[in-house]
Amino acid sequence: MITNSYYAQEGHGPFELHEIGDLDLEDGGTIRACKLAIAMHGKLNAAKDNAILVPTWYSGTSKIIEQVFIGKGRALDPDNYFIVVVNQIGSGLSTSPHNTPDGMANFPKVRISDDVRAQHRLLTGKFGLASLALVVVGSMGAQQTYEWAVRYPDMVRRAAPIAGTAKSTDHFRVFLDTMSDTITSDPALNGGNFRQSSDVAAGLKRHARLWAVMGWSTEFYQQGRPAALGFPTADAFVDNFMAGYFAPMDPNDLLCMAWKCQHNDVSRITRGNLPQALGRIQAKTFVMPVDHDMFFRPRDCEAEQKLIPGSEFRRLHSIDGHLALFGTDPAFLAQVDKHLSELLATRA
Amino acid sequence: MITNSYYAQEGHGPFELHEIGDLDLEDGGTIRACKLAIAMHGKLNAAKDNAILVPTWYSGTSKIIEQVFIGKGRALDPDNYFIVVVNQIGSGLSTSPHNTPDGMANFPKVRISDDVRAQHRLLTGKFGLASLALVVVGSMGAQQTYEWAVRYPDMVRRAAPIAGTAKSTDHFRVFLDTMSDTITSDPALNGGNFRQSSDVAAGLKRHARLWAVMGWSTEFYQQGRPAALGFPTADAFVDNFMAGYFAPMDPNDLLCMAWKCQHNDVSRITRGNLPQALGRIQAKTFVMPVDHDMFFRPRDCEAEQKLIPGSEFRRLHSIDGHLALFGTDPAFLAQVDKHLSELLATRA
Repeated sequence: MITNSYYAQEGHGPFELHEIGDLDLEDGGTIRACKLAIAMHGKLNAAKDNAILVPTWYSGTSKIIEQVFIGKGRALDPDNYFIVVVNQIGSGLSTSPHNTPDGMANFPKVRISDDVRAQHRLLTGKFGLASLALVVVGSMGAQQTYEWAVRYPDMVRRAAPIAGTAKSTDHFRVFLDTMSDTITSDPALNGGNFRQSSDVAAGLKRHARLWAVMGWSTEFYQQGRPAALGFPTADAFVDNFMAGYFAPMDPNDLLCMAWKCQHNDVSRITRGNLPQALGRIQAKTFVMPVDHDMFFRPRDCEAEQKLIPGSEFRRLHSIDGHLALFGTDPAFLAQVDKHLSELLATRA
Repeated sequence: MITNSYYAQEGHGPFELHEIGDLDLEDGGTIRACKLAIAMHGKLNAAKDNAILVPTWYSGTSKIIEQVFIGKGRALDPDNYFIVVVNQIGSGLSTSPHNTPDGMANFPKVRISDDVRAQHRLLTGKFGLASLALVVVGSMGAQQTYEWAVRYPDMVRRAAPIAGTAKSTDHFRVFLDTMSDTITSDPALNGGNFRQSSDVAAGLKRHARLWAVMGWSTEFYQQGRPAALGFPTADAFVDNFMAGYFAPMDPNDLLCMAWKCQHNDVSRITRGNLPQALGRIQAKTFVMPVDHDMFFRPRDCEAEQKLIPGSEFRRLHSIDGHLALFGTDPAFLAQVDKHLSELLATRA
């Protein structure tokens, strides 16, 4: 356990911690008194049918979700919906290696399905929800969105996985090995038993650089987006924006999420049969890849979309690639809002 | 200096070592008694107008060039041409950190332009060549092809840069930082003063993994190419084919080539004016990117092509991406041969 002020209310709040009891994990082990950090926007209506669940992505928290996707006049409008943003296990806000006694080097392996079962327990048990108007968001949030729609098909009325897949591809799995390498190669990680994140600064810097290569796109650099975002050179962008973003984060928390992300596979519930798993989905689903995404190619997302009954393929355009999710491209956000508004207007 | 049997005649020969004298380098320093390892195929004709120069790419030697591109009935046919494959400085065969006394941690920075000047000295001085029918090959070989055509425009009659650019893009430069990170992060590198390559096995393994991510393509994995190449899983492909390929190489040699590759820029000769540099080219030039290449996007290559007088854009198709250069896709090689045969048939 370690004190890391990065994850405090000051930077990421307001959020509430809800304990959901002990969580037995799919790969063995138990998280005792598992806590989920949630941020809420808007009010649940009397019919309890206006709830939207938004999970979080790798390294992100409820704060960036709020900043990028939620607001008056947006598709996710707190005036119309009760929006619950649930920080994933390992996010640093919910139960995570860094905030668990003796958890740092010994935190168990957590799967996307563990998160989704934990969220289900919270939403049904504590909030009494029986139905979700929408589950939505990008990247690892898309992984959770797919898992929700497959695992609890009669609870999810609409689903919008953005920039993510229902099952990690081989290419993405190899990338995540490479990504974990950037951190685990740092001797200062000390098997997870470092004293503070800054001990692992070299590994976190390498990690940031790799994200600079794969997170954006070749076009992002060619068309001078770093300069447009205020950085005189690509190197300044990498050294300041990217490295600065990851530097304060907890390396064990990142590795926990990386393993989870790598092993994502909705077809575990159907013993590896992906068409059968995706065929379970009852939600009206918009599959929304980003065209310059170097991880989740539109063609791969479309192959999954075709296995989802009644689903639609909605391709998003941004040279910011995967990290358009950061909200750096207003035109991208306008596309997201247009599709989500249309999806929310669909009877489901 | 280190003995590394990987670079011996047994694996990469036959090749000849030619000393070209002392080579003063653009970034300072001198390579004393610089040796270039060359492999020759076919005979120089009486008019001395049938010579083809083929440089080498990152980590590759004259052997893979021969295996992939040269042969009876191929565009590069030894019956018709005098084909000279020149191993680049740092390749492990020519003068390189590992085979230079006191060179390991102290080898000077070498630029593409240094290689091209060294090759020019060899071809004009030793072989008496005044004209090249073609300069061709891929990746760092394309960088040298561009440099030749820009630096010695009246000597290069035809040029075919495959899967490479005349100036490294920002994205590619950041990638190469990340790539060098995989090796320099290994404490066993010991500032370049390791005892043998296997000391740096962990770094070389990470380096291989990153190449597995960026060297091929997402489609390569999605369409099961690792299995088609004889590996049951993507992990087996990475652990055996990719890691096995790089494991015996010299880390200092790789880092020497990586720096050179990263700093590639033909416009240094025109003080940063890329249109002016590419405008110098007199060679009939076919610019040949590969459509799934994750480094050198066809769009980026086309932007350069438009600056080259009389050039043509010939896009190659292969889901093997950049590493189609390994010769793993016969259909790719057929396309290369078709374009090169057409180029060689052009009056120039």
